[in-house]
Amino acid sequence: MNITEKILSKKAGSDVSPGEIIEIDVDLAMSHDGTSPPAIKTFEKIAKKVWNPEKIAIVFDHTVPPNTIGSAEFHKVARKFGRKQGIKNLYTHGEGICHQVLPEKGLVEPGQVIVGADSHTCTYGAFGAFSTGMGATDIAMVYATGKTWFMVPESYRIEINGKLPNNITSKDIILHIIGHVGSDGATYKACEFCGETIDNLDVSSRMTITNMAIEMGAKNGIMEPNKLTLEYIAKRTNKSIDQLNVFRSDKDSVYEKEFSFDISEIEPQIACPNDVDNVKNISKVIGTHIDQGFIGSCTNGRLTDLKEAARVIKGKKVHPDVRLIVSPASKEIYEIAMEKGILKTFMDSGAIICNPGCGPCLGGHMGVLSEGEVSISTTNRNFKGRMGDPKSEVYLSNAGVVASSVIKGYIESPENIL
Amino acid sequence: MNITEKILSKKAGSDVSPGEIIEIDVDLAMSHDGTSPPAIKTFEKIAKKVWNPEKIAIVFDHTVPPNTIGSAEFHKVARKFGRKQGIKNLYTHGEGICHQVLPEKGLVEPGQVIVGADSHTCTYGAFGAFSTGMGATDIAMVYATGKTWFMVPESYRIEINGKLPNNITSKDIILHIIGHVGSDGATYKACEFCGETIDNLDVSSRMTITNMAIEMGAKNGIMEPNKLTLEYIAKRTNKSIDQLNVFRSDKDSVYEKEFSFDISEIEPQIACPNDVDNVKNISKVIGTHIDQGFIGSCTNGRLTDLKEAARVIKGKKVHPDVRLIVSPASKEIYEIAMEKGILKTFMDSGAIICNPGCGPCLGGHMGVLSEGEVSISTTNRNFKGRMGDPKSEVYLSNAGVVASSVIKGYIESPENIL
Repeated sequence: MNITEKILSKKAGSDVSPGEIIEIDVDLAMSHDGTSPPAIKTFEKIAKKVWNPEKIAIVFDHTVPPNTIGSAEFHKVARKFGRKQGIKNLYTHGEGICHQVLPEKGLVEPGQVIVGADSHTCTYGAFGAFSTGMGATDIAMVYATGKTWFMVPESYRIEINGKLPNNITSKDIILHIIGHVGSDGATYKACEFCGETIDNLDVSSRMTITNMAIEMGAKNGIMEPNKLTLEYIAKRTNKSIDQLNVFRSDKDSVYEKEFSFDISEIEPQIACPNDVDNVKNISKVIGTHIDQGFIGSCTNGRLTDLKEAARVIKGKKVHPDVRLIVSPASKEIYEIAMEKGILKTFMDSGAIICNPGCGPCLGGHMGVLSEGEVSISTTNRNFKGRMGDPKSEVYLSNAGVVASSVIKGYIESPENIL
Repeated sequence: MNITEKILSKKAGSDVSPGEIIEIDVDLAMSHDGTSPPAIKTFEKIAKKVWNPEKIAIVFDHTVPPNTIGSAEFHKVARKFGRKQGIKNLYTHGEGICHQVLPEKGLVEPGQVIVGADSHTCTYGAFGAFSTGMGATDIAMVYATGKTWFMVPESYRIEINGKLPNNITSKDIILHIIGHVGSDGATYKACEFCGETIDNLDVSSRMTITNMAIEMGAKNGIMEPNKLTLEYIAKRTNKSIDQLNVFRSDKDSVYEKEFSFDISEIEPQIACPNDVDNVKNISKVIGTHIDQGFIGSCTNGRLTDLKEAARVIKGKKVHPDVRLIVSPASKEIYEIAMEKGILKTFMDSGAIICNPGCGPCLGGHMGVLSEGEVSISTTNRNFKGRMGDPKSEVYLSNAGVVASSVIKGYIESPENIL
């Protein structure tokens, strides 16, 4: 069995196979400021008390601080519910983006089943957990019962080998993969990422890859935890590595499809408007005019990303007609970046440092695009209107490419800057 | 003659008296991201080139980064205009709130006439300038001609004496004055602040007072520049103090009204909902529930304010049900506060640090209130719906009081915390 099947079998209490419908207990359920109020509305029709307040996390991240009366109302409803239900993992003070905050707070472990009312809940697969996003009404059922149902997914094995070239990050790996597999190429599949490149990635870089599994339609993205990951989790959960419930795929595991990529010679990858799988080598799009750069999000707002961008931008200036927005993915990351002088490097270049949150990724606030404007962004989606006006455009890249591009005012490769 | 009359006489080329209508040249004209587009629309009906691109400043501050497609469009229009007209003082990269940025950039001097498409343009009176806000269409005329007209205002002399008690700041002085004079008590008057207390205030604290002159309806607020102010301006403008054009009121100056306040025994002052002149001693409102605290704005987002609040909050935690939002008034202030560990003090307490801008002061974004929510705020206005829902409420105070209140979850005096 592969890792996904092993986790679901353990939870189901018997061996499961792809296609089988199972009802299982979840280890952690999550909603954010945008999805909690609709989940609560449904919940209150079916239950009075949540099944287990220790296993629920509510994180305010989509519009923090509230940008409209409506979002303030959403915060109020979610905060009140959290207090009433005794939910301790209630993060209302700008702690960061849910997918960053949950691992930081030690809520994520390998072998767990995690569901969240946010499509990028697949991120926690980087820690060897089965995690997937669902709608707010489905989460309401989980809040009430602690259970949910799945059809056991078929698995794709996606092997990545090769040493990362200069200026290439895990963002380029996942964009490269999405370009090949397609935005609907892995619909409802368990995407298992493996290979020497994955084994050698740090936690932050691994999260970027599983985070974007949903962009191929995957039910979940997953990786066997490597040493760095186990050390991270042990530290965050105050457990020893031996206490963690690590699953690994058997050698004879069955996969519906197998892919193999060598990334040792790839260029920076750019997902061009308006599809995440419209992926091109950067050399094909250098010179494309931009109005905004964004470094942040659950995909690429971590310290690794900030360092990479700071390395490129240090001592240089953002183009006068471009706005660069930097929003660390969590308060913890923000504080470290502040202490290390990384935020100052960005500010000296002309960047605007925003508080942690989802901000412009979804055209929410803090960097919305008007008609005809173009953003290069470390985020995960570039469909029509994602970051603002339907006639705006979004190019997705790694953080270093955003940095080199905002200096020039057009898409540029870091290697031409450094 | 008094200081206001002297400045206007110098500009008019002959002695002027209250009630006289004069047309004069302005030294500096300003608009922000919210008022530039309407000003530009009018300007383009009447002129092709601005009268003097060196004497115009455009500062993006009301919604930075843009929070909606509309605000992004406003930024685009203003940026394009600025470039086309060769306006060098075009601050589009989150440099801060216009009223803080202009003095920092050395654009404000004593004896100048400054007009701005923002009501708090009266702030620059702290530097001994005649400065006042006007509508965007009036600013369009100034952009085209460099001239504007005024009726010379009658003057009020407002003398303040006494040593500031502990936990009392210049915000308490101006709230105390507004409570006495009333929100329409100085309509179209030149409010001249003087007395030993004013003479001894630092630049930041002086700005808080002139900033709120408009809250009594004043045409302008003004002070004779003191030593600290002249040193500040000399440094920012690269001039010697001798080169500055300082006006002082004659001993026999005529005033329509004279006020005298002794602030040596006042309590912290709170402007209660929904009028800025509904000012009470803090002892009358201690215990009032709050949902949000905001430290920032052109009134109280300076280093002096951040230090005062940090002194109160250091080592303590924001109440779990309250959000504290801190937005330094400028990028310069942000960087200094970051370097000095002040931002870290706030973050450790549970505050959300937002990028410099007007943010929640006007219910724009970054801390909007929903129905029934209450904010205590260092800002300048608390009319119905100012920070969000018409059924929300705003209490105005100094920064230390915001800090002590957010710890408790209700209005509390710093002296009961420290």
